[in-house]
Amino acid sequence: MIFGKDSLRRIEEREPHVRAWAAIDRDGALSAARNADKVRRNAAGKMRQLLGIPVGVKDTISTADLPTVYNSPIYRDHRPGSDAAIVDLLRSAGAIVLGKTETVEFAAHGRPAPTRNPCDPTRTPSGSSSGSAAAVADFMVPLAVGSQTGGSLIRPGSYCGCVGFKPTYGTVSTEGVKPFSVSLDTVGWYGRAVEDIALVARAFEIVEGALPRQRRLAAMRLGLCRTPYWDRAEPAMRSAVERVGQRLAAAGATVENFELGPEFAEVADLQETIMCGEGYFAFLNLFRAHPDNISESIHRRIVRVSNSKLVAAQDKAAALRPIFDRMADRYDAILTPSAPGEAPRGNLPADAIFNGLWTLLHAPCITLPGLIGPQGLPLGIQLVAPRHADGSLLTAAAGVAPFLGP
Amino acid sequence: MIFGKDSLRRIEEREPHVRAWAAIDRDGALSAARNADKVRRNAAGKMRQLLGIPVGVKDTISTADLPTVYNSPIYRDHRPGSDAAIVDLLRSAGAIVLGKTETVEFAAHGRPAPTRNPCDPTRTPSGSSSGSAAAVADFMVPLAVGSQTGGSLIRPGSYCGCVGFKPTYGTVSTEGVKPFSVSLDTVGWYGRAVEDIALVARAFEIVEGALPRQRRLAAMRLGLCRTPYWDRAEPAMRSAVERVGQRLAAAGATVENFELGPEFAEVADLQETIMCGEGYFAFLNLFRAHPDNISESIHRRIVRVSNSKLVAAQDKAAALRPIFDRMADRYDAILTPSAPGEAPRGNLPADAIFNGLWTLLHAPCITLPGLIGPQGLPLGIQLVAPRHADGSLLTAAAGVAPFLGP
Repeated sequence: MIFGKDSLRRIEEREPHVRAWAAIDRDGALSAARNADKVRRNAAGKMRQLLGIPVGVKDTISTADLPTVYNSPIYRDHRPGSDAAIVDLLRSAGAIVLGKTETVEFAAHGRPAPTRNPCDPTRTPSGSSSGSAAAVADFMVPLAVGSQTGGSLIRPGSYCGCVGFKPTYGTVSTEGVKPFSVSLDTVGWYGRAVEDIALVARAFEIVEGALPRQRRLAAMRLGLCRTPYWDRAEPAMRSAVERVGQRLAAAGATVENFELGPEFAEVADLQETIMCGEGYFAFLNLFRAHPDNISESIHRRIVRVSNSKLVAAQDKAAALRPIFDRMADRYDAILTPSAPGEAPRGNLPADAIFNGLWTLLHAPCITLPGLIGPQGLPLGIQLVAPRHADGSLLTAAAGVAPFLGP
Repeated sequence: MIFGKDSLRRIEEREPHVRAWAAIDRDGALSAARNADKVRRNAAGKMRQLLGIPVGVKDTISTADLPTVYNSPIYRDHRPGSDAAIVDLLRSAGAIVLGKTETVEFAAHGRPAPTRNPCDPTRTPSGSSSGSAAAVADFMVPLAVGSQTGGSLIRPGSYCGCVGFKPTYGTVSTEGVKPFSVSLDTVGWYGRAVEDIALVARAFEIVEGALPRQRRLAAMRLGLCRTPYWDRAEPAMRSAVERVGQRLAAAGATVENFELGPEFAEVADLQETIMCGEGYFAFLNLFRAHPDNISESIHRRIVRVSNSKLVAAQDKAAALRPIFDRMADRYDAILTPSAPGEAPRGNLPADAIFNGLWTLLHAPCITLPGLIGPQGLPLGIQLVAPRHADGSLLTAAAGVAPFLGP
């Protein structure tokens, strides 16, 4: 991992091109880095596992010492009085919050982040965790926090070319994170390598105990899932996923087709219904107090869903979760696209079709970089596992990662 | 309803005995009251339905202009930079936030509120929404906000003798409310009459459109539910519930026994598992950073639940919700105890056994005062309905309330 001073040097050089940062705490970070060595344990007596590591935090997440703007004019001068729970956890583990990263307005819709894809400035980094993905992919920080309600974490990781991890829903407190959809919002993070992601997962007790030991590839079983939305994957992504499956099979792993049954046919619609229906209650206070300072596309998309439709979607989703868990439990991980293809031109988040279903299922997901598409841009491969199988997912990801060369 | 000046006068007189308030904004409230008439519509052009009404807000809910202490030494000087969503909504509707009301530590366990039951200072007001219930019951404010994860809203309403309402889970944003259990935490409020509660429910769009019209009692159908925990109700509460059923039947309503089937046998255990399991993730940042400033009983109760046990409880709860909805849908409301009996001596929250199951089921609940127990203290009667039947629940409550005389 790279540390404080190197991060600041890299940011100075690259930020004018990438625009990943909404705010940077240069002096605070340097002083925290100087003091890092002094306290090796936190108040609970735990080792500070992220000691001295500079971290970017998505600007929908509260920080006491830096503004938290949500990319919204309503919150232009907003300074929360305290840190979000995830920021507390990072600091207790010794990490240094270097700054806030750019986001789509309220991590929802509306104003895109000003961030550019570090691989090609004419391309979108995607969103809503745009700045966090770009900052890690561009070597500005080794670690950054994002969040996902639809595809806001995995998809930017795929487009920018870094590792992105959404843990099992509910394992990281969302206190101090701008809410969107209470039963979907999940905090996660980006890193350069699976091992760094796993370090954080252990520090936050997402994984109970040690990580499972890596299995010989011949003992690994992977399910290749084309999802009900395979036709929305670009040819390059389709062949990338197939190619990875073939490589792993050639190396000895068992790779089987994994099909979501007909009961999963509407899984993306369910996610959209819940996101918007719950989102309406989350945004109601802003709709009332600041209707003119919320982007038109938020007003258009986040509308009241009828109670009966919302509750039916919530119940259906709840019923699908254990079904998926049981199906996926036979596998070390499910292999599936992280995004439809390479990053499109422009600055919009683009299509979350390969993410919303897993968010709905509360399943832990990781996107791995390495593959390159026909336009020379990253194609992320996603691994998914049953709820709370985060530990074995991370172990499987470490086993799969070496097979993702170009 | 009574207004700002009268509220302050009443508080001045009674607060030394009741101790309902953690903080009061005397000047701010008076100035807001003077200005109330000037703006009759909020930014979205909606009528301010709560114009000039003074409100108490539980001190686990963020306010920008008043401290938010959670009854925790960790947050002694805490001033959040912005209002919680519920506070925004109240202000947009024209309400005046008069002050913050006392709570049990983090609305969880540990330090009890200093509040006394206004009906008898030797008795507990219960918790965790102790101050809000006591302030409304003691005529200090006509309206106060509380929250419920187990029985924190309905039970204090029962003990103190006011109306308390927990709407359907998810219909009020919990942004800015100290989290405990993400799938259970619900914001609600106290009032003196069902009509006042209903006014707020409409202002917050919990009820879609107008309230259903009140039905002739002869057309009403009520289910009398003794729950699997009837033996934990005191004789006085048992006979109170039976008596109300008989009165309503005598007046022409259909009152039937409503039994939760064997699949509901462990419903209280499921609630406890989820509350503590999810609570562990909610408190982890504080456990790490401030272990010595959290009460021992929180450390003892909120412990890590194994992933498999937590997820099994979550799935079971999710499966029970639509089953209860279908069973209860035949009734205008389910009639059941609000608490085991009259308020016990002391200052502890006491037994939430008649509340946790309904919180788990995400069902809207209302407690109605009026009945008096053998020790001269209030006995609350609870009405419950399927998810999102908040409107018909409130209409049923208005119909039942006149039958709750002593």
